[in-house]
This record gives sequence, structure tokens and C-alpha cells, in this order.
Amino acid sequence: MNAKGTGDKSKVSEPTLKRLPVYLNFLKQIKEGGLLTISAPRMGKELNCDPTQVVKDLAATGVTGKPRVGYNIYEVIQSIESFLGFDRDNNAFLVGAGNLGRALISYPEFRNYGLKIIAAFDNDPQRIGRSDTGINVIHMDKFKDLTQRLNVEIAILTTPANVAQTVCDHLVECGIQAIWNLTPARLKVPSGIVVQNTSMYSNVAILLKKMKDRES
Amino acid sequence: MNAKGTGDKSKVSEPTLKRLPVYLNFLKQIKEGGLLTISAPRMGKELNCDPTQVVKDLAATGVTGKPRVGYNIYEVIQSIESFLGFDRDNNAFLVGAGNLGRALISYPEFRNYGLKIIAAFDNDPQRIGRSDTGINVIHMDKFKDLTQRLNVEIAILTTPANVAQTVCDHLVECGIQAIWNLTPARLKVPSGIVVQNTSMYSNVAILLKKMKDRES
Repeated sequence: MNAKGTGDKSKVSEPTLKRLPVYLNFLKQIKEGGLLTISAPRMGKELNCDPTQVVKDLAATGVTGKPRVGYNIYEVIQSIESFLGFDRDNNAFLVGAGNLGRALISYPEFRNYGLKIIAAFDNDPQRIGRSDTGINVIHMDKFKDLTQRLNVEIAILTTPANVAQTVCDHLVECGIQAIWNLTPARLKVPSGIVVQNTSMYSNVAILLKKMKDRES
Repeated sequence: MNAKGTGDKSKVSEPTLKRLPVYLNFLKQIKEGGLLTISAPRMGKELNCDPTQVVKDLAATGVTGKPRVGYNIYEVIQSIESFLGFDRDNNAFLVGAGNLGRALISYPEFRNYGLKIIAAFDNDPQRIGRSDTGINVIHMDKFKDLTQRLNVEIAILTTPANVAQTVCDHLVECGIQAIWNLTPARLKVPSGIVVQNTSMYSNVAILLKKMKDRES
């Protein structure tokens, strides 16, 4: 058994990567309940997925179960966290301190998932200052200087969609390497810059479509 | 040309459904700039995707372009909105008025994407009352009564993960038909109940993984 998260990351599919945090959340919950081991079939049943898939996904992180015993829950948690980089703090700046932005900076849970928002930026003077959660909202003027001094590579983009590209261009100029884009805009970035899109609206579209399908 | 959104919805894939709101956002932006028509190659270029895919996706909503002219932007917007149900108000209740929940109720943009949050619910007395945005936060005790009186079918779940399943069971008992699950928990629901999962953490996992891949 191997809990060092040494699985071969380059071969892991996006669906697997999406499921791993789901397993992690589930395992943390049952660990609190005092359970020490769990089998793949039980995990599959609780999470509504194929046990063979569970075994495959966990193997990708470098962990395997024991016959008739199952997985050591502590080891699996450690393996997933290590594999995903959730056991390290990846510093991030949030850009756009509107409603969604302010919600994200008050989300202490992100810390458990490897993302540490260390400051937020906006160009609206009314939003500048210390937030309720102790994270500073700083004027965008200072973005470049702070990105370089603190060596921050990740930006979370929560601006209005119509300024997303302009802001994105500026972030890249300032040295940002990876952008988590929560706006519905599609960003153009130089090759080598990582973008992960999370469109809330796309999820609304799928939800409404599934409801329609059910009716028809 | 057909802008009635009469495409065959049952055959549309999830990736197409995810792209349609992206096109919609883009077209609304360029419409504001005064443009009347746009070609598929131009859309593909602006949005970093294959023009053939654009043509296919738009055809699914029931709209086609004209040779050498392209698409009428108004018609495409109308067609996508109609197809996705974004031109109707789908009433929804939000459950869990914590940070993320409060952010979502202050998101007027959802209205443009067919989702109208008409009230929020929580069981914490400190959260009960009128929010800044005019949406009431109501005690969970009143959920059943209001769901049935107002005939609400959609709930947006933003509770802590460890109570998500218990709350979900209650929602279904009260008559909710579709749940947009923004918690990292995986919900068990009776067949026929629609669940759309949006895990912020899964997106963080993919972002961090893409960064790692780039380094290796």
C-alpha cells in the first residue's frame, strides 16, 4: 500500500479528477464517524457509482485496498490529498470582489482543498479594505507588484463577464500562470497559461434540460 | 431559419448544453457593440472552439446561418434562450443561506439564465430576515408549506456538506423535483428527481492538476 500520492498524474482523466474530491469529502465525513476501513463496493453504493471505477480512481492516486478488509480510510485521505496537491497551500489572488468574489473569500473550506486566497483585488474604491473574513480587498493598481513580490501564480476571476478578457490580459502580463475563470466569458490566453472554466450558467442550463427531459 | 428553439432537445449532449450559455454570453456582448450578424468561423475564433462545432451546437437549438452572411445575432440569442428555457422564469428556492448561498441570492444575472430565486431558507435564526437584495431568508419550518403553495420545483442546495443528505431528503419529501447541488456531497434521491452537481472543489482539483502537468 502506498499513501504518498505517487500515482502517475499525467494519465489521469478529468472525470477521475472530478470524482476524487467527492471521495475525499465522503471519506472525511465517515472518518469523523469513527470508521477505520471501507470497501470499494460500500463506497460505490454510498456515492452512487461503480465500485470498479472507485478502485481505478483510487489506484490512480497510488493507493490500493486489502482483500476482505478494504481501504484504510486515513491512508486513502492522505493519498488523495497528496495526489491532488490539497495538502499544500497554493496561494491565490481573487480578482473582482463583487458578490461571488466576496462569497469565495469567505469560504474557509477552500483551504482544505489546497487553495489559499491571500488577497482580493478590485478597482472600485468602495470595495477596498478589510473584508469580514480578514482578507484584504486591495486596489487593482497594486496587483502586479504583489503578484511578483509574493510569487503568486493563481488568480480566481470573478469580475463581470464584459471586462473578463481585459482583466485576464492584465493578469497574464503581471505574471499569473493559472486562472480559475468563474465568469461566463471564454478567455484567450497565451499558450502555457492554464485556464479552468466554471460556468454557473452552464450548470443551470443542464439542470433545466434534465427537468425538461423528464417531462417529455 | 427558425428562432423558436424547436430543436430536438432529447438528443443534445451535455457538452453542447455547457457551450450554449457561453455562446449566449458572447453574442449578448457583441450585440451591445452593435453587430447584427456573425459567422461561425468568427465565433469559433473568438471563443477558441471549432467552427463546425459551433454550427452543430446552434443547429441543435433550431437555428441556421445564411451562406456568406452568417447568423442573425438576435435570432440566435432568441433561439438559444428559448431552447434552454432561459426566456422563462423557473422559480427556485435556495436552501442554506451561508456565504455561498447569500452570494447566489445577490446574483441578479441568474434571472437572465432562466432561474429566479424567489426565497432562501435556513434554520439559523440569525440568518432569517430580508437580505440586502430584497430576497427573504425564511426559516426552514416554512419550506414545505411555501413549496406547495407556490408550486416551486427547483431547490439550490448550499448547506454544509455534512447535512446535505438530510436536507435533501427533506426537500424531496416537500415535493422538490430538481436540486442544484453546490455542496461536495453526493446525494441519494428517489428515481425521477433531478440532481445537478457543481463541485467547486472538483474545479480546484483540475486547475491544480493542469498546473502540475505543465511543470512536468
